[in-house]
Amino acid sequence: MTPTLQDCRALDAQDPLRALRQQFTLPEGVIYLDGNSLGVLPTATASRVAEAVTQEWGQGLIRSWNSAGWFDAPQRLGDKIARLVGAAPGEVVATDSTSVNLYKVLSAALNIAREDAPVRTVLVSERSNFPTDLYIAESLCRERGLQLRLVEPEDMAGALTAEVAVLMLTHVNYRTGAMHDIAAVTQAAHRAGILAVWDLAHSAGAVPVDLNGAQADFAVGCSYKYLNGGPGAPAFVWAHSRHASRFWQPLAGWWGHAAPFEFTPDYRPAPGITRFLCGTQPILSLAALDCGLDTVLAAEPLGGMAALRAKSLALSELFIALVEARCAGHGLGLATPRDPAQRGSQVCLTRPEGAYAIVQALIARGVIGDFRAGDGNRHLDILRFGLTPLYIGFEDVWQAVEHLRQVLESGEWQQARFNQKQAVT
Amino acid sequence: MTPTLQDCRALDAQDPLRALRQQFTLPEGVIYLDGNSLGVLPTATASRVAEAVTQEWGQGLIRSWNSAGWFDAPQRLGDKIARLVGAAPGEVVATDSTSVNLYKVLSAALNIAREDAPVRTVLVSERSNFPTDLYIAESLCRERGLQLRLVEPEDMAGALTAEVAVLMLTHVNYRTGAMHDIAAVTQAAHRAGILAVWDLAHSAGAVPVDLNGAQADFAVGCSYKYLNGGPGAPAFVWAHSRHASRFWQPLAGWWGHAAPFEFTPDYRPAPGITRFLCGTQPILSLAALDCGLDTVLAAEPLGGMAALRAKSLALSELFIALVEARCAGHGLGLATPRDPAQRGSQVCLTRPEGAYAIVQALIARGVIGDFRAGDGNRHLDILRFGLTPLYIGFEDVWQAVEHLRQVLESGEWQQARFNQKQAVT
Repeated sequence: MTPTLQDCRALDAQDPLRALRQQFTLPEGVIYLDGNSLGVLPTATASRVAEAVTQEWGQGLIRSWNSAGWFDAPQRLGDKIARLVGAAPGEVVATDSTSVNLYKVLSAALNIAREDAPVRTVLVSERSNFPTDLYIAESLCRERGLQLRLVEPEDMAGALTAEVAVLMLTHVNYRTGAMHDIAAVTQAAHRAGILAVWDLAHSAGAVPVDLNGAQADFAVGCSYKYLNGGPGAPAFVWAHSRHASRFWQPLAGWWGHAAPFEFTPDYRPAPGITRFLCGTQPILSLAALDCGLDTVLAAEPLGGMAALRAKSLALSELFIALVEARCAGHGLGLATPRDPAQRGSQVCLTRPEGAYAIVQALIARGVIGDFRAGDGNRHLDILRFGLTPLYIGFEDVWQAVEHLRQVLESGEWQQARFNQKQAVT
Repeated sequence: MTPTLQDCRALDAQDPLRALRQQFTLPEGVIYLDGNSLGVLPTATASRVAEAVTQEWGQGLIRSWNSAGWFDAPQRLGDKIARLVGAAPGEVVATDSTSVNLYKVLSAALNIAREDAPVRTVLVSERSNFPTDLYIAESLCRERGLQLRLVEPEDMAGALTAEVAVLMLTHVNYRTGAMHDIAAVTQAAHRAGILAVWDLAHSAGAVPVDLNGAQADFAVGCSYKYLNGGPGAPAFVWAHSRHASRFWQPLAGWWGHAAPFEFTPDYRPAPGITRFLCGTQPILSLAALDCGLDTVLAAEPLGGMAALRAKSLALSELFIALVEARCAGHGLGLATPRDPAQRGSQVCLTRPEGAYAIVQALIARGVIGDFRAGDGNRHLDILRFGLTPLYIGFEDVWQAVEHLRQVLESGEWQQARFNQKQAVT
């Protein structure tokens, strides 16, 4: 039987993670289903950033590089991220952007793979991977005379051939929310002599990740989505300890030097993950990220990522059930896998026409999801809804679907003002 | 005759730029001579960053990518920087770190130079260049099988041979404050068929720079020194319009794509400088940078960089004269060129021993400069003092030198607590 509004309120009342929502400042009248794109503001962030600006910078000035721990922030925040992705202390640094970090780890992975087996000249990824990942891979392959081979998910297994050096995948697909099994795919890659590089942009903080358990090779991730680090917050990078000191990476700047304050003209890489640092990092944005990480770590006493995952799946199951029961007959399809084991923390709906306008009509009602255009071929236009268990409740889902139902039944999305396309991110 | 304290107060009273100091919040009891390392806090920054946190992020959420102009911030701030370095609107973007940006422009410059003349296999720089510049150059040369040749300043002219592809220099030397003539050196390089890449880390906002007038090829720079952007603020990158669209650069991420929101799997570089963007940028740190840039642009109605330069030189002339008159007999030497035309906006003193302890004793008195270790050979230990004309006055210089005199004459620097070396940045 389809859950009622009262059922949803009862689920919220019983939710052991409910109190975690108190960590955030959410706008009045908004149901925010876009935490998969930009996480919401932790209440602690404003005062923490203000302290970094007025006290650490304004009063401490240059002394704060040491006294306020600015210089060690990439490692200190990296250790917090490590707890969320199955890595050990000292294995992660928070730095640069996901794209830049991907360049570092793909370079290192290609060096390792090709030193071990020079005949491996192919980098494999999914055609539907987030484009910036493909652009960085394309660039590296062009520079090195290697081949980038893009495949559809169903052709992945057959693509792991003896000429492949590196497999680069995003754990949770940004368009559909489809999730890979990191351990199984990594194992399949390793059996074929291929290194596995993972992008955790849409999974860190959203689903359990166990990088060391999976024996993955390298990983990068984004911290402004489910980690609530703020717009454009520095990303992160991880290397398995068996690889971390094996190669330097090409963005070999002074923050990755073994002794940066000796100011020697020759580069000598720091041991371990620190060599994946390059230049000076944006401290104010790192201060905000610190607060974002704390909001996710606050779930640890309540069951941590496993508890967040359980709630996330309960939310997405509810969302799917309500859409199918209450919005039937309006041409919506489900792009997200129905199998919970293959689903990230988002639900994506398809519609042959009007998807952009429907999303705009929802936003006008305060229900913020987003739109991703299809390719007019294999992929349909998508209405994307992120379900962030830290701050989304069961009633939020009920109300969001009710708004969707009203938008569809009233036909209000057909108003011209919702059809004016603008740039969305 | 040596200027007196009264003379210095008179100079401050007559200083047409004096009011610019009101833009900043400086700690009580501090004379800050380290703006060449980290600029001070503009008063406007705290509320601007708070607005970005609480309103743009907290309330606007994902909508602020468009409504708050987050997505265009690299270009908008770049246009402000352009006014300070002799570049045109649309030629500069604020993004990433100086090291990462150097990787981009050196890659592009090497591609261009070697496409035009494959026999050119050498990249030349100064041995005393800031180390991260050398590390990035070393990395690129290693990857491409090229040679990095490091020379002393006096050997530069002879090093511009037919096998050189690119000359990479920092405009103002971080250790000594010695300044190159960008136009003359670029012209000499071009006569020899060599591209000139400039690092403006210690000159942007401190001395006049005319990149287009000098016909330079590429430039990068730092925004947390004289541009007061805050700790680790995003850096900037410029390419001459004749090169900007000629090559992509290897950090080819989605922010540098011609149509980033089409999410196509193939990279198509944006026209012009935008292709030098890579991944999503740290918006909170960019908001702070915006305020920093405004503090320098506020000098425009008062004569702009030329007026700032005139005051900077008056300050450094005064500093040198006072040290030589009032601290004579204490073993201090001058590492900064005596010729004003060859001097940046800092004064560096040498001392065979005790330089570190003297700097520490000055810091304990509230006079913040910094220390740079020598190499035990060509370069002596250095006491480094940045003279930022936006917020340093003539009396500040007098008082700083008076503190230095007292530290030297009292011998207080010989106390053990000043000799405990700690990491400095």
